This record gives sequence, structure tokens and C-alpha cells, in this order.
Amino acid sequence: MSFDLPKRVEIFEEGPREGFQIESAQIPTSEKVRFINALSQTGVKHIQCVSFVNPKRVPGMTDAEEVARLITKVEGVSFTGIWLNYQGLERAAKSSINLCGELQMYASQTFGIKNSNRDDQQMIAEQRRYLEFYGDNNIPLDSAILMTAFGCNYEGAIPIERVLAQIASILALAEEYGLQVPRLRLADTVGLAVPTTIIEVVSAVREKWPDLRLGLHLHDTRGSGLANCFAGLSLGIDSFDTACGGLGGCPFAGHRGAAGNVCTEDLVFMCHEMGIDTGIDLEKMIECARMAEQIVGHPLPSKLVRAAYDLPPKFGH
Amino acid sequence: MSFDLPKRVEIFEEGPREGFQIESAQIPTSEKVRFINALSQTGVKHIQCVSFVNPKRVPGMTDAEEVARLITKVEGVSFTGIWLNYQGLERAAKSSINLCGELQMYASQTFGIKNSNRDDQQMIAEQRRYLEFYGDNNIPLDSAILMTAFGCNYEGAIPIERVLAQIASILALAEEYGLQVPRLRLADTVGLAVPTTIIEVVSAVREKWPDLRLGLHLHDTRGSGLANCFAGLSLGIDSFDTACGGLGGCPFAGHRGAAGNVCTEDLVFMCHEMGIDTGIDLEKMIECARMAEQIVGHPLPSKLVRAAYDLPPKFGH
Repeated sequence: MSFDLPKRVEIFEEGPREGFQIESAQIPTSEKVRFINALSQTGVKHIQCVSFVNPKRVPGMTDAEEVARLITKVEGVSFTGIWLNYQGLERAAKSSINLCGELQMYASQTFGIKNSNRDDQQMIAEQRRYLEFYGDNNIPLDSAILMTAFGCNYEGAIPIERVLAQIASILALAEEYGLQVPRLRLADTVGLAVPTTIIEVVSAVREKWPDLRLGLHLHDTRGSGLANCFAGLSLGIDSFDTACGGLGGCPFAGHRGAAGNVCTEDLVFMCHEMGIDTGIDLEKMIECARMAEQIVGHPLPSKLVRAAYDLPPKFGH
Repeated sequence: MSFDLPKRVEIFEEGPREGFQIESAQIPTSEKVRFINALSQTGVKHIQCVSFVNPKRVPGMTDAEEVARLITKVEGVSFTGIWLNYQGLERAAKSSINLCGELQMYASQTFGIKNSNRDDQQMIAEQRRYLEFYGDNNIPLDSAILMTAFGCNYEGAIPIERVLAQIASILALAEEYGLQVPRLRLADTVGLAVPTTIIEVVSAVREKWPDLRLGLHLHDTRGSGLANCFAGLSLGIDSFDTACGGLGGCPFAGHRGAAGNVCTEDLVFMCHEMGIDTGIDLEKMIECARMAEQIVGHPLPSKLVRAAYDLPPKFGH
């Protein structure tokens, strides 16, 4: 096996947004702020703090503006939020979050319809509204995300031609507005990817757009999360969306927390042990994961939180 | 990246032995037997059921002989046990377990001394006694295991020369008795491996002994378990020791179960999705993991037990 590991990886921490939006308990705003402030001291440079979504649908994010206002901003760290429609974007722009323009598309149209009630054409129309707003308000375009890029629980495997066509749409859309997409994030929204699908999709996208920077947004729904990261790393992928503690996941799996994003500290450990720099203080990130467990009140999927560094197994192999 | 995935992988299920030896609660013998009987219906061909160790040290294995006697043997499935000293081997030979001769060595001498109170020379002396017993009793040599092959919590990284030297000792020892080692299992006993260490060690061993069949025995202590499996698979490794549900792990982490073996069903899922056959019925293996959780009375690390196959995440990406 030959591989091309990056020297440095950029981590986009999404724990606060991924985690707090699905927790059933109402977490005090002050606790969310405390967690985000701790994360900002770990060396991570990007923290996705909140989502500006319908409070009736996602009660855990009712206090998005309040969280954005109360966090202690740190020089060199971006504190971001997401939106899934134009109203959300307007709310974000009025908040004290650092605005990072994003374009969103689904590889699976069925999933898009179920998840955001829009077909491809409606998604594109919404992205145009975003792009106009970005232009009018001098919001830089930071990334585009292609959701369900590695499979869909409704449609199953997504043909690679369809993935490439959706990416071509996003890039063309940006170009219409005189913009380049600085980073394209391929998302395994439902956690169906395995290393070979990562390699297949990344290689196909690379072949067509060799200069496009790629990122991976992976959920560890079925245990292959870090294997998928390694598959990406082996192709030189140097940008990952992750969640401290492995926060997040499917709201129906709830407190058992088994389907969250790839866990930040577990990926950071793996990177560091492979000689890949992340700029993150691993011990501090593990402390944040411990704090997250206290805040949500149940164990999170993180392995490192529980790894006994200095205790040998006593029995067997 | 070029890689050389095997077409078929052989799974050595160690859940009953790994799991029941560390659980603090006394699990009824009948429950252990029920679990092993269920495993024998999944298509897995090797089930490590018990360890013949000091009951004072490992109370969970006091009933090893009883378990071995009560399980329903299935044609084509081997029901095995392990021992860590000569007395254990004698007990195993008197039991109704399927005897598979094993040689054991540590890459880290410090770990060997702490774990089994023997230095290298004493380990070799003990292996000679095993080999004599195997010869006298017509027990076939099935495998050798090199523990702490990828790192040690006392010694840290193990130099590759030391790993190779210890393997050379095992092979020479077998040869003295006119035997070949059919399969060498490299064990990440304390869960310190990352994909690059797997690749480094496997490649070095392969270079020196190209015809030696290799297996991996990995613990998912720090989250890299399946990434390490993929690294092995990418080099054509076709034999893995795993545990249903992710049973097992460090007794001090106990019920939180975060440091067990790589989880059988999660690896089987990843293999099947990559087009690698395991001969295992995935749904039946997941049912066994659910049974294991009921038996031990707490959640296990398995992701697939909790994966919501048909539910999309409702919010965010």
C-alpha cells in the first residue's frame, strides 16, 4: 500500500452544534457557553457553535443567539453557526457568530426532500438566495457541503455520476456569482461509508477537479468512522469535521449516543500517533470531552475519555 | 492508494472469553452457554469460549470446564479455550474444549513480566513445555501470538528489530519440535496501534517471512480499531480476532466497556460493504450482541447494535 498522508490536518469542531441540538434535556445556555469557551483553549481554530433552525423543531437550539452573544471570542478562532434555510441565514447574520458562507446540496434527492422539504431545483434556488445574501453582506464563501455523498438510507448507494453531477452544480452556481468554492465537504450524513467508498468517491472527485480542496464530514454510525478518516488521510485529505466526545448523532438513538460525528479526540490521537499535526492539545480536548459528558449527563462515544493510558490489561492477550 | 483487499476474511470470535473474564458480576453458566450456542449459529467457525486461568485471579472463569461441557457442539465450528501456563493447558486438555495448540510471546519483556511474571527466557521455557505436551497428546499447533507487538504502556514503542527477533524465536522454537506455525497473530494488547504502525509491522514481517500467514488481534482502546483493521485488510490480512458486541477490555474500565476487542459485527459490516466475505450472517451476529448486552447488563461498544438502519438524522448535515 502506498499512501500520501498530509503533514497537517485542519479540524472543524462541530460538537456544540451537533451535540446540543439533539440532546433531549434542556441544557442551560451557560453550560453551552462554558463548553465552547473550553474548546477555544484547545488549539482548535474552528468551532461550530449553534444552528439557526426552527426552535419548535429543534428546541435545543432556541438559545442560539444567546449562546453566540455570550461566548468569549478568541483571536484566531472562528465561532460559526449553520442555517438550513434563508430565515436561518438572516438570523445568523444578525447574531454575533462569525459568518462563514456555505453552500448545501444533497447527493440523494430523496433524502433532501425528506430532510429539508426541497427537491434539487428548490435546493439550487435556495443556494442562489444564500449567494445573493453573501454578496450583499460581504460574507466570504467558506465551503460547500454535499450531504449523503456516500449513500442514503432511502436510495441506498448513490451512483458516482450523480455525486459528480451535484458537485458540478454547486461549483457552477458559485461561479455564476464570481466565486470559487474554497473547500468541498463530502458528508456521510447517514453513516453508510466504508473505506472503499471513501476512496472511490474522493478519487473520482479528485480526478475531475484536481485543485479542489476536499474535506470529510463523517458520522460514526456503524463503527467505520476512523477507518474512513484513515482512508481519506491516505489520499491526502487534510480537513475533517468532527465532534468533541463524539457528540451528536441521530436524535432517535438519543442518550445512547452511538451515532454521532467522528470523535475529535480519537481522530486527533490517531493523527498525532501517525505524525500528523493538528495544532490541538490532546489532553485539553479530552478534558473538554469529559466536560461534555458532565453537561449532557451521560457517556459519550469517545474512546479516549475512557482509555486507561497507564493500566495494562491483566488477563488474556 | 493501491491496496490488496482479501476476498474472504476468517473471524476468530473471542467475545465469550474476552468478555466474561472481565465482567464483575457473576454471570450464570447457563447464560454463557446460551450466548456461545447462539454464536455457533451465526456462521462463525471459531469461538474462543473460556480461559483456563486461576479462579482466584479471574473469578469469572471459575466455571470454564462446566461451560465447555455444556455448550452444544456444532459440526465445523471449533470451540476453543486459552491458557497462560502449563497448569491451564493441563486443565484445558481434560476439558471438552477443542484443543488448538498456541505459542505465546511478548514483544515487550516488561509487559510479559508484569502480566505473567516471566521474562523472555522463562516464556520460552514455558512454550517448550507446551510444545512437549502438544506432541505427547497429538494437539495440532494452530497459531502463535505475539502480544504488545504494536506498543507497550510500560516500554512505549517497540523497535521493529525486537518484534522481528521475538517472531524469529517463536518460529525457531516450533521448528525445533518439527512444527510450522500455521498463523502468526500480531496483538495490539494495550490498544496503542494506529494504521501506520500496523502497516510498518506487517510489512516488515511480510518482507522477512513472505509465506507466513498473519492475523491481527486488536483492541479498540483508543478508537482506531477498525482503522487498524482496514490498514491490515489493505495489505491482504485475512484473519482477525474480534469480540461480539465489543465485549472485553480492561477490567479497570469495567462496565463502561470502552477498551474491548474490535467489535465483530462492526468489522463484519465493514468487510461486507467492501465486498469481503466473512461467512457470517450479520443480522444473527447483531442479535448475539444484543444478547450479550442483556447478559452483562450494560451497553457494549458495538455501534451496529444501536445503528438505526432506516432512520435519517433529522437535523443539520
